Amino acid sequence: MQIRTDLALEQHELNPEVEGIESEEITVGKAKITRITVLNEKGEQAIGKKRGRYITVEVPPFSDDSGMDEDQITAIKNELANMIPKEGVVLVVGLGNTNITPDALGPKTASRVLATRHITQEFARSIGLEGLRGVAVISPGVLGQTGIETSEIIMGTIQRVNPSAVIVIDALASRRLARLGCTVQMADTGISPGSGVGNERAEISKDTLGVPVISIGVPTVVDATTLAYDLLGEKPQQSQLVEPRGAKMIVTPREIDILIDRAAQLLSHSINCALQPSIDPEVLLSLV
Amino acid sequence: MQIRTDLALEQHELNPEVEGIESEEITVGKAKITRITVLNEKGEQAIGKKRGRYITVEVPPFSDDSGMDEDQITAIKNELANMIPKEGVVLVVGLGNTNITPDALGPKTASRVLATRHITQEFARSIGLEGLRGVAVISPGVLGQTGIETSEIIMGTIQRVNPSAVIVIDALASRRLARLGCTVQMADTGISPGSGVGNERAEISKDTLGVPVISIGVPTVVDATTLAYDLLGEKPQQSQLVEPRGAKMIVTPREIDILIDRAAQLLSHSINCALQPSIDPEVLLSLV
Amino acid sequence: MQIRTDLALEQHELNPEVEGIESEEITVGKAKITRITVLNEKGEQAIGKKRGRYITVEVPPFSDDSGMDEDQITAIKNELANMIPKEGVVLVVGLGNTNITPDALGPKTASRVLATRHITQEFARSIGLEGLRGVAVISPGVLGQTGIETSEIIMGTIQRVNPSAVIVIDALASRRLARLGCTVQMADTGISPGSGVGNERAEISKDTLGVPVISIGVPTVVDATTLAYDLLGEKPQQSQLVEPRGAKMIVTPREIDILIDRAAQLLSHSINCALQPSIDPEVLLSLV
Amino acid sequence: MQIRTDLALEQHELNPEVEGIESEEITVGKAKITRITVLNEKGEQAIGKKRGRYITVEVPPFSDDSGMDEDQITAIKNELANMIPKEGVVLVVGLGNTNITPDALGPKTASRVLATRHITQEFARSIGLEGLRGVAVISPGVLGQTGIETSEIIMGTIQRVNPSAVIVIDALASRRLARLGCTVQMADTGISPGSGVGNERAEISKDTLGVPVISIGVPTVVDATTLAYDLLGEKPQQSQLVEPRGAKMIVTPREIDILIDRAAQLLSHSINCALQPSIDPEVLLSLV
Repeated sequence: MQIRTDLALEQHELNPEVEGIESEEITVGKAKITRITVLNEKGEQAIGKKRGRYITVEVPPFSDDSGMDEDQITAIKNELANMIPKEGVVLVVGLGNTNITPDALGPKTASRVLATRHITQEFARSIGLEGLRGVAVISPGVLGQTGIETSEIIMGTIQRVNPSAVIVIDALASRRLARLGCTVQMADTGISPGSGVGNERAEISKDTLGVPVISIGVPTVVDATTLAYDLLGEKPQQSQLVEPRGAKMIVTPREIDILIDRAAQLLSHSINCALQPSIDPEVLLSLV
Repeated sequence: MQIRTDLALEQHELNPEVEGIESEEITVGKAKITRITVLNEKGEQAIGKKRGRYITVEVPPFSDDSGMDEDQITAIKNELANMIPKEGVVLVVGLGNTNITPDALGPKTASRVLATRHITQEFARSIGLEGLRGVAVISPGVLGQTGIETSEIIMGTIQRVNPSAVIVIDALASRRLARLGCTVQMADTGISPGSGVGNERAEISKDTLGVPVISIGVPTVVDATTLAYDLLGEKPQQSQLVEPRGAKMIVTPREIDILIDRAAQLLSHSINCALQPSIDPEVLLSLV
Repeated sequence: MQIRTDLALEQHELNPEVEGIESEEITVGKAKITRITVLNEKGEQAIGKKRGRYITVEVPPFSDDSGMDEDQITAIKNELANMIPKEGVVLVVGLGNTNITPDALGPKTASRVLATRHITQEFARSIGLEGLRGVAVISPGVLGQTGIETSEIIMGTIQRVNPSAVIVIDALASRRLARLGCTVQMADTGISPGSGVGNERAEISKDTLGVPVISIGVPTVVDATTLAYDLLGEKPQQSQLVEPRGAKMIVTPREIDILIDRAAQLLSHSINCALQPSIDPEVLLSLV
Repeated sequence: MQIRTDLALEQHELNPEVEGIESEEITVGKAKITRITVLNEKGEQAIGKKRGRYITVEVPPFSDDSGMDEDQITAIKNELANMIPKEGVVLVVGLGNTNITPDALGPKTASRVLATRHITQEFARSIGLEGLRGVAVISPGVLGQTGIETSEIIMGTIQRVNPSAVIVIDALASRRLARLGCTVQMADTGISPGSGVGNERAEISKDTLGVPVISIGVPTVVDATTLAYDLLGEKPQQSQLVEPRGAKMIVTPREIDILIDRAAQLLSHSINCALQPSIDPEVLLSLV
């Protein structure tokens, strides 16, 4: 497989006419929503993704300075709200390495998600935040920093926090540079080993954790090898050009830091809105 | 109690002639080591600290630029090695808030402790690091960021990692400004609620976690109220001067960031040396 | 002089009945504005500040989460607008050390001031920002990092940019902890050597630079020696308690980082509003 | 011109047999030194670089963890020392944007160059640093942040500091991914408009500044368009694949932050050694 992408949308574009896949596309304002369902093993093999739902919300690339498109936020919030159980604490997990810019989307987003599990209803009411839902937030780091599989830290936390669902946030790789920073994918299938921007990880899913796992992410890079394959229509003959001494290279905008900051703002605000429907979005923005 | 200090040494100075306390002092090179043992309930009440060992390693304040005094590192390493079981994985925990400078000592130190639990003996040998001990490292954040008591995250991690001991790193408050940045305290009694630089926390100790808990820290601040009491010999009449509208204030060097960086280097290197006695200290320094 | 303060307001409180000083106080909404004018040499000697205007805008301490009080912003904007020439480029200078948290107010604020000098009127119009005033922004660092007096770097820049005025932003020291973070002082007398949080600097004023210099700042610390003097009513006998081995200590909230971030937001937004009266404040906020 | 590179070495590889170019190659330990001289207008046109000397020091890519290869440091130090006048203050300038990771090499390096111009010989002697050369250091930011051309800020500073030479540090673009992070180029021709990682800038050279300008840099990125051209042997037909909506994309390692940190350490230490030949390198390392 020469084309690497974490987006079901792009996998489906590569194999449009397969059995075992259903897809629909709707447009709300500027936001285009694509819902892909992998129905069975045939579908799994065809697009290399586990059975389940994959929802993409696309808007034209960040044209305004803030990156906060209202239509996109509304669409993400609604899709996310539909995937999350209505009751119970939600555990939000920022995956990735805070010291590696293209991989910092998860922790950056998590740092702006409102943690509320420790706030009593009484106190919440006293500060005008009646109806806060319990949310716990962790950024477990990466294996090289901790010596612990991310999935193990999440499992340990689940045993203490007992959430009704887990939301995992991660930087993604896409096939197309045009999608960097302006496409959001949600899925209810968890994170499989080897996903993300090049980190091997044990699976983080309902199968391994015992509670629903909703993943949300934004593509921040394209693999250089994928770009080369797309340009050439075949595997590059001189692999040294794209992977010198076997080192994986990425393609990204020079202003990668700005892309990450905007995507973190977009995701965190959408997640806060989805988790706290009874709180005014403006108030949520002022709290983080 | 008007004087707030996390140092058993200073508590003991306040109540030098009490039953239930043993103390000894030795000097190795530039480093002065004080070992205080709280023997029983009488001792506990006298100095407000739990039964157990409290070891302080002092050197003259950072006079050189690097802050890495060889005598101090050796003394800390030896004392720490004596408190840690010889076998098994060690879980190192950086307590505190990475976004609040005076409270960032724990996470800053943890980020420089070598995580090795995921490295196979075979791989370690192949890169010339035979005899690596298994070490896991986490920085769980603070309650306001996560919605989860730090002790809960640690407990969850312990259940997965099964360590033979936990080392918790924390910023401390001392009574004396002269001790900021140049005194290291280790203890085998864990962290009690309300310790640290003003964060309330559930207890982190062998009683609650089921494995030995060794704490290590450096004072980074003096409470303004403590300084006022020491200056006046009594509680300030105009409490507004030191706690305007009840806000807790701290006293610290203007160059607090430099103090934290140096203390994090000192602690992380000492911990790495204590945990990896078979690796050359120079090699350890180059790995983090 | 045992009491150190950069606020003319506090100097005046210490010597309220002197010749050579005029003061008036008005209240607009939540904001209390105090305008002090040092008229002559008598006034200069009495309050230790150069002839000129000193304007303080106080609001009750940050009670809301964002720290952006509308009344305070309006008052600062208006006072600042009155001090700045109506025409010509303005050079904004963030003084201080970005690596020392209590001293980082200047650079942090400057990084959020909108630089526009390089934008043509034509381009500004094309993006809906007609009437942009030319603004240049630098953060020259501190002597220990650059080897160059800050005043020299500013002078060199003035020779190239030819501004009609300079605004210098700096962290201040106050006498009272209650004023940290919630008081803003503006002055038209520049910055004198030894001001700021302990850095010696050559004077930055109209006398040395040849153009009007307006300073703006927020107190971020109280000198420990000043607090001790206020508590005792005299110089501390045991100076080791407040200045161990001669090291200057400061008093500040533990959450110093949050104080600095909020003050930088407040100052930068007020400066942007004062310099760009033809642009909508909401648009200005979205641009930085 | 489809291939973009800031390295004279790579330009020369593209046009090896031209008049007006001299080149020699020597090897010292692990370091390969290539000295290219552009002699005249023919040479200038052939390789698109101004008349002058271009020296490249290459070592095998960072294999050790610290990235500090002794042979490379020695070679850079010697070549640099040969390009700098023996007497007078040297002004070191870190070009680039500290908030954009691939562009932060200049400011990151500058922050570790020892500023000494303000230190008296007397004081230097008293701390055992006899023979310190006067060095001034600035990081002027980028046009979008300051509203001032970088060259203007440098000119203004030169007028005050009166240096005998300027060293400018900048992130470079290379043609080959294999060179990222492990090749250092020095030149005595200054920086031309449009160099660096995509910023347009007015020329910074002896012609414009009146003093010798030595540039030093490390490639941190390859332009995606350059990689595409090299893979295809021609301009990509589907330019949207590499420049979606005209946005310039870069190719770089995922661990770009680590590459930048290592390169900044390498450059700053080499510059410090070249500028302070009378100080022990170990002492220099401990001072920054």
